[in-house]
Amino acid sequence: QNRGRLLVSCPDQPGIVAAISQFLFSYNANIIESNQYSTNPEGGRFFIRIEFECPSLKDKAKDMKQQFVEIAAQFSMEWSFRPVFEVKRTAIFVSKELHCLLELLWEWQSGDLLTDIALVISNHEEARDVVEGLNIPFYYIPANKDIRAEVEAKQLQLLKEHDIDVIVLARYMQILTPNFVAANPNKIINIHHSFLPAFIGARPYERAYSRGVKLIGATSHYVTNDLDEGPIIEQDIARVDHRSNVEALKKIGRSIERSVLARAVKWHLEDRVIVHQNKTIVF
Amino acid sequence: QNRGRLLVSCPDQPGIVAAISQFLFSYNANIIESNQYSTNPEGGRFFIRIEFECPSLKDKAKDMKQQFVEIAAQFSMEWSFRPVFEVKRTAIFVSKELHCLLELLWEWQSGDLLTDIALVISNHEEARDVVEGLNIPFYYIPANKDIRAEVEAKQLQLLKEHDIDVIVLARYMQILTPNFVAANPNKIINIHHSFLPAFIGARPYERAYSRGVKLIGATSHYVTNDLDEGPIIEQDIARVDHRSNVEALKKIGRSIERSVLARAVKWHLEDRVIVHQNKTIVF
Amino acid sequence: QNRGRLLVSCPDQPGIVAAISQFLFSYNANIIESNQYSTNPEGGRFFIRIEFECPSLKDKAKDMKQQFVEIAAQFSMEWSFRPVFEVKRTAIFVSKELHCLLELLWEWQSGDLLTDIALVISNHEEARDVVEGLNIPFYYIPANKDIRAEVEAKQLQLLKEHDIDVIVLARYMQILTPNFVAANPNKIINIHHSFLPAFIGARPYERAYSRGVKLIGATSHYVTNDLDEGPIIEQDIARVDHRSNVEALKKIGRSIERSVLARAVKWHLEDRVIVHQNKTIVF
Amino acid sequence: QNRGRLLVSCPDQPGIVAAISQFLFSYNANIIESNQYSTNPEGGRFFIRIEFECPSLKDKAKDMKQQFVEIAAQFSMEWSFRPVFEVKRTAIFVSKELHCLLELLWEWQSGDLLTDIALVISNHEEARDVVEGLNIPFYYIPANKDIRAEVEAKQLQLLKEHDIDVIVLARYMQILTPNFVAANPNKIINIHHSFLPAFIGARPYERAYSRGVKLIGATSHYVTNDLDEGPIIEQDIARVDHRSNVEALKKIGRSIERSVLARAVKWHLEDRVIVHQNKTIVF
Repeated sequence: QNRGRLLVSCPDQPGIVAAISQFLFSYNANIIESNQYSTNPEGGRFFIRIEFECPSLKDKAKDMKQQFVEIAAQFSMEWSFRPVFEVKRTAIFVSKELHCLLELLWEWQSGDLLTDIALVISNHEEARDVVEGLNIPFYYIPANKDIRAEVEAKQLQLLKEHDIDVIVLARYMQILTPNFVAANPNKIINIHHSFLPAFIGARPYERAYSRGVKLIGATSHYVTNDLDEGPIIEQDIARVDHRSNVEALKKIGRSIERSVLARAVKWHLEDRVIVHQNKTIVF
Repeated sequence: QNRGRLLVSCPDQPGIVAAISQFLFSYNANIIESNQYSTNPEGGRFFIRIEFECPSLKDKAKDMKQQFVEIAAQFSMEWSFRPVFEVKRTAIFVSKELHCLLELLWEWQSGDLLTDIALVISNHEEARDVVEGLNIPFYYIPANKDIRAEVEAKQLQLLKEHDIDVIVLARYMQILTPNFVAANPNKIINIHHSFLPAFIGARPYERAYSRGVKLIGATSHYVTNDLDEGPIIEQDIARVDHRSNVEALKKIGRSIERSVLARAVKWHLEDRVIVHQNKTIVF
Repeated sequence: QNRGRLLVSCPDQPGIVAAISQFLFSYNANIIESNQYSTNPEGGRFFIRIEFECPSLKDKAKDMKQQFVEIAAQFSMEWSFRPVFEVKRTAIFVSKELHCLLELLWEWQSGDLLTDIALVISNHEEARDVVEGLNIPFYYIPANKDIRAEVEAKQLQLLKEHDIDVIVLARYMQILTPNFVAANPNKIINIHHSFLPAFIGARPYERAYSRGVKLIGATSHYVTNDLDEGPIIEQDIARVDHRSNVEALKKIGRSIERSVLARAVKWHLEDRVIVHQNKTIVF
Repeated sequence: QNRGRLLVSCPDQPGIVAAISQFLFSYNANIIESNQYSTNPEGGRFFIRIEFECPSLKDKAKDMKQQFVEIAAQFSMEWSFRPVFEVKRTAIFVSKELHCLLELLWEWQSGDLLTDIALVISNHEEARDVVEGLNIPFYYIPANKDIRAEVEAKQLQLLKEHDIDVIVLARYMQILTPNFVAANPNKIINIHHSFLPAFIGARPYERAYSRGVKLIGATSHYVTNDLDEGPIIEQDIARVDHRSNVEALKKIGRSIERSVLARAVKWHLEDRVIVHQNKTIVF
């Protein structure tokens, strides 16, 4: 309840940590976790994520935000200040294959994903029962490339109505338009079923099979307008061999996709991921 | 001393294993290890590798080869029959970075690579001391793309003189010509410092850094005329994060390159690798 | 439908594979997969698992079993012959924590576990809804060490009624009596939440935390009368560090437990696991 | 040259980071890397490691140490302040098996281990050539349990003469006495060839084979007087299966031992390891 998070990036120089920690101390906040990174101590960019415990944070939060503006100006900081009690609201997009959705719902039920899953949107009906069984609103919006604009208008409307902070594409097999992406910068998390940058685009398991790789993988990344080129949040792989046909690769891959996406979403919800120059810093 | 290996590939049909195992039994050979694979039991291609122990193999080997011709004809087999006492002769090519060479020499000294390392060829002098210290002939042949034909002529001459079966490119940073490759089909093993097909070509660690991947890898493959497109024998990866700059990626990668190449060479020497349609079956 | 499996173990000697493969060929069976292992080619024990495709297996199966008796006698074989269409029947035992049960149900729904899940038995009510929702009979049998005999009598009765081949302890937190174990040799698969033989017995995550290990693991094994000492089928681990408290270890561990148990059960159902001298051969 | 490291542990309370970072800023030091951990924000113990760049550190170091005493007193800190240019001096102890020693020498030659390897002590002669070839003093001190006191007296004398900071037991197969251990608290790093706490004591690979584990491992830990019970720094594992006999396990294990020990030594040299209640915090 009294937990807060401060994320800052700014040009590196001596004194940043001193200023921030002095600021937090002045509110009697105790730093619980702190991670920092500098692209280069000489003239590079500095990033820090601080998680702190602050008595009566609810009452102080507004004032803290206002007071921090001054420090931010002094060091030319980009920053965000988020009390943990302000839970993020998530929308999940899914198509026919449910394994990634199910993994997210499972982790959410176990208390491992601290978010409100506000709605699930799908271009198929397969997920309806399990989603509605958990009392989560389910919206069936058929989609194909000919009606993309119209579909996305409906989706954006729903996201707005539900006040969504995070959009997870849990194997949603439709390409989003630049318009949709631009409306949600660094807010859309996708799972791609290969270890990027290998096998960008469609049918990665088929192509992995043709190439005869000995490892298959999955990659979770933020969506940008370059297909499968957005900042990578997490990747993992599993070993395969000549006996694995395409169907076997898909089965093995499902398990990697599930865990990679779940980790990426979790880190995003915990404000651990910072995007910088199309790469991520994961604290 | 009495150990032999039989590798066979042919159209799949019932009766193949019966015929081969009956043949081996007629020489009183005991099957020690047997691995098989079929691309498709219905009309696919069948592969088998059998390692056996046969009393007095030295005396029988010639006769066995002659007698097997008949079975091979019956099932339209491609096959090879190799007594283990006929040790393969290996040439290692290396440039300035020695970690892969050192790993191979180390494993060879420990008795883990059963081969004669007949010579080391390099376009630099860095490796001379360690190679000659082990009483292995070292040949310094400066190379660059302008004198490629002439350099390869010298190399091919040396390979012929030393009666070489296997060529290992242990971070040899020169491209081989189609002529050289054609002269050594499925005999040249390369280590590429990325998880192929990601980062084909030059400077993979630099590109991995730019892309912000969370895994880096290495791939050992047979060399064909399509750069980094040959049949993959083995791959592995290591986790990295935003803190790893290019130099750090290279350090982490060296350790993967070492072990991936050593495994691939070992499997090749043990006749465990079969190439089929630009992919490998590793038994 | 025409798929069959033959498992054999016997003293190693030349001619075994020849005899078996000749036998299968005489029924026009095509060998699809074959794995073998010998503890020692000189006087050791030989193991083989053959999966084959045999036209009209249903009609031939009885005759094949009878005819194989002769070969078996000749080589002193222990053997089993199982048509794949004879699906095994599984009982799952569970307590309060459902993650392992859910993983098995999930894999079963995806078609990855070929078995009839005939019933679920629990000493708690937590699993009832999900189990009955899939139309699987659920039996609530409260248990504690004082009423063990009586509880097991009920359980054994149910197992008999449902004609059970495999019992999976999916985090069933009760110890079984020697009587129960003896009635089901190599048929009870347990998941233990540590990498055995480390942390045998109760509260492994607490003890892993106290010891400060950098890896936690899970082990699936057959149940014998020596607690956590039965033949190990599969193990896996995950990295942890000083920041992981006991609760965090449990969360990370759940994911390993799920996948380790699922793999072990799958291999058992596919007749890939042979027990020999309190160890397993996994083909 | 201007790089320094500050390690602190003290009772957790608000204001610690503010005080330390203010102190460093007052010397115009720029924090390059900072890691912290608290066993419990409410009344637990707080740990922090800060690496910083400070202009003219050589001139300021003495003064900084003196001035820090005051802050340390205020927060009841245990602390160490180490300029990176004060390179640690390492002694390596080895017996007959050289793989761990060779890995350390290799990493040291590559510049990955920043230390002076001041001497190698062995109870066998196997390592002499390679050690002396690198111009490192080699001392042959035969050892067995009957002459332990005398042997250790010689060793301690050598350690003193060479002003040693770190002792690495790179497969040194002798047990150290409490006297020796007490003289070098948290300074002796051992590699044990199992994933502790499994297979404490002698012949772990033989016992792993007997138990039929599917994973083998290695553990690097500080030496205490409880055999193989000291604080664990690093562990890793590799998969094995029924085909691996004891000899094969040892081969596979050697590769894990090498990398686990090298990582542990590297982290220790970089002052990343803090011991707390027989566990390590690795920053």
